[in-house]
Amino acid sequence: MAFINENYLKLRGSYLFSEIAKRVNNFKNENPNAKIIRLGIGDVTRPLVPAVIEAMHKAVDEMAKEDTFRGYGPEQGYSFLIRKIIENDYAPRGIEIGEDEIFVSDGAKSDTGNIQEIFGLDNIIAVTDPVYPVYVDSNVMAGRTGEYSEHGYFEKITYLPCSAENNFIPELPKEKVDIIYLCFPNNPTGMTLSKEELKKWVDYAKKNRAVILFDSAYEAFIREKDVPHSIYEIEGADEVAIEFRSFSKTAGFTGTRCAYTVVPKKVVAYTKNGEAHQLNSLWNRRQTTKFNGVPYIIQQAAAAVYSPEGQKQIKETIDYYMDNAKIIKQGLEDVGLTVFGGVNAPYIWLKTPKGVSSWEFFDMMLKEINVVGTPGSGFGPNGEGYFRLTAFGSRENTIEAVERFKNLKL
Amino acid sequence: MAFINENYLKLRGSYLFSEIAKRVNNFKNENPNAKIIRLGIGDVTRPLVPAVIEAMHKAVDEMAKEDTFRGYGPEQGYSFLIRKIIENDYAPRGIEIGEDEIFVSDGAKSDTGNIQEIFGLDNIIAVTDPVYPVYVDSNVMAGRTGEYSEHGYFEKITYLPCSAENNFIPELPKEKVDIIYLCFPNNPTGMTLSKEELKKWVDYAKKNRAVILFDSAYEAFIREKDVPHSIYEIEGADEVAIEFRSFSKTAGFTGTRCAYTVVPKKVVAYTKNGEAHQLNSLWNRRQTTKFNGVPYIIQQAAAAVYSPEGQKQIKETIDYYMDNAKIIKQGLEDVGLTVFGGVNAPYIWLKTPKGVSSWEFFDMMLKEINVVGTPGSGFGPNGEGYFRLTAFGSRENTIEAVERFKNLKL
Repeated sequence: MAFINENYLKLRGSYLFSEIAKRVNNFKNENPNAKIIRLGIGDVTRPLVPAVIEAMHKAVDEMAKEDTFRGYGPEQGYSFLIRKIIENDYAPRGIEIGEDEIFVSDGAKSDTGNIQEIFGLDNIIAVTDPVYPVYVDSNVMAGRTGEYSEHGYFEKITYLPCSAENNFIPELPKEKVDIIYLCFPNNPTGMTLSKEELKKWVDYAKKNRAVILFDSAYEAFIREKDVPHSIYEIEGADEVAIEFRSFSKTAGFTGTRCAYTVVPKKVVAYTKNGEAHQLNSLWNRRQTTKFNGVPYIIQQAAAAVYSPEGQKQIKETIDYYMDNAKIIKQGLEDVGLTVFGGVNAPYIWLKTPKGVSSWEFFDMMLKEINVVGTPGSGFGPNGEGYFRLTAFGSRENTIEAVERFKNLKL
Repeated sequence: MAFINENYLKLRGSYLFSEIAKRVNNFKNENPNAKIIRLGIGDVTRPLVPAVIEAMHKAVDEMAKEDTFRGYGPEQGYSFLIRKIIENDYAPRGIEIGEDEIFVSDGAKSDTGNIQEIFGLDNIIAVTDPVYPVYVDSNVMAGRTGEYSEHGYFEKITYLPCSAENNFIPELPKEKVDIIYLCFPNNPTGMTLSKEELKKWVDYAKKNRAVILFDSAYEAFIREKDVPHSIYEIEGADEVAIEFRSFSKTAGFTGTRCAYTVVPKKVVAYTKNGEAHQLNSLWNRRQTTKFNGVPYIIQQAAAAVYSPEGQKQIKETIDYYMDNAKIIKQGLEDVGLTVFGGVNAPYIWLKTPKGVSSWEFFDMMLKEINVVGTPGSGFGPNGEGYFRLTAFGSRENTIEAVERFKNLKL
């Protein structure tokens, strides 16, 4: 008799986005003429840049001819892309990364979801609250947590509260933890850690032989100087941290699918007997066994992001979104709301007024001004009383949404 | 202190292909002028067909414009592709599959590697011997097996021997098993199961509430009539079987990456309390949590495989490879070797002469005629004394390899 993995039964349903869809659909049925603006989902809207389009056409043509056709590539990604990643994303910051320390993949969601496989089941993991749900759910599925409690937490996970009270800077845990997920610039809050703050975590990991899983999918949106783009800007981080990067938001690849993960060879974890093992070789084994690489065409698209034209073009797109972020932030402040994020990230995290709950605010926004956002409580109990808007819409919709903020009955 | 997943330490190194590479390189260093022909690796060589190329150019152009740009798609795949899969691969055989029973992915390797996650750790799995290594290794990594024994087997796995003695038809296991991996047409043997034989497995699974994981990545190469293309041709299989398909060999997508998995809603597995759960919803949860879908461009490429031109064009490519298979089979038989496979599959599985071991035969082929193949023992202990050649080379190389067979000192 085949048995299921019962850990899956501990998971919460995907209530957040299905509940959003349900409420929006109900509203549309009752108000068929309402022009709804969606600033909820974290998906991009600007087309791929010309340098990427050109590179893909070229790569497609290569696949049409016998002498330039590509079959299986290296599971870890082609050298032509890995070298560009090193030259552009790391070398200019004085960070040395070897070619065999980078693993190209189909997405940071896949990698942040799969990375836990190389760790034992009795590690204690720590996540911020609010948090990107994949970090938690992938560990629940693997059996690294206990049950879900009515307070909104899974047993055996250490949650690190982030709210206006601590300026969204998580405190070091009081109990010992083994694996720490950090995402900065943060989804959903849009807030960052300074080098000094990030150093505390690196030092904690070194002292406790913990591993940091650092998601820097939003680093391209950083505008302020002291904000680290890579955790490897912190001395010693290459002994304790794995870093996740993505082309999704940086270059509009949400529907094109390319990302990469850096696993320095110095990063180790231990057997129960205290024997150190390189996580690089474990991840290499995971990827070569269960993954077959990213399409050649897509890797050429990603490589084109690093050409001089590509860099100039994606900068324009990022500027476009960050101008949206400014417009939203200013608009919300003008109507008297307290707003976080939006300076070094495409996410705006607002405090709901007068103790209104996240979902109440969702309904207000939908009904009063026909704007859809994401209730902060969907990202964890400490997101209650907050609301996420994204800067990924069109300029026209963004400006109109801001105009409508004035009609909110706050 | 972070702990590793110690199950990874049970894995065998990727000795097979690295050992092949090592021996080939040594030979090349000593014989720099030798013209080596590689018929070892299972990678295709024919370019993508024109219908696919055209569809990709069109999709690339869509990604360049704001109004046709695609961001995140459904994790399960776009309807336009799923509908074509149903209409072409299943409906004509009288098989009813729902749109929400198909999950498009980046490869059958990913899916056959990841599928075990939705099952509990104390299922007993059964695999054929020889076998595609991913089925075994992914279960070792998860902790579903014991240690590797010097006989070439992992403890707790049930191995089903397949050799010339049983015409490569596995027998039903004597002990009870819970999850059965079957791949037919088979990699590496190139042999098939008749409907009658496959029915025995479906009946076994129904009787024992087991689940069959059926890999039919090579179905497009079937030429004989009684050979089932899909396990769902067997009555009742939609209650016990998950089927894996791939565009890799069918349409030359090894470097383009697209596949799909069918999980009928009737297929269930159980909690320890005997509660039945649909595997469809567990797999859906797995994919939506840890995967973000296949690139839009690639899904359009896959959809183009099903256009009338696409079907005609891929048939020509498949015919090309199957003509290679015939040439190799005939050539080997002409020099007196016993040959299996190559009729309904692109793999030729030959019996080494006079009790020569798989690796000894590898060295003979390399040194005497400069042809590289894959030692059968690399796929499991029952592969010892066999050798795999593939039909995926160019016609020119295939013909030349066959000419060289005559010079083998058998």
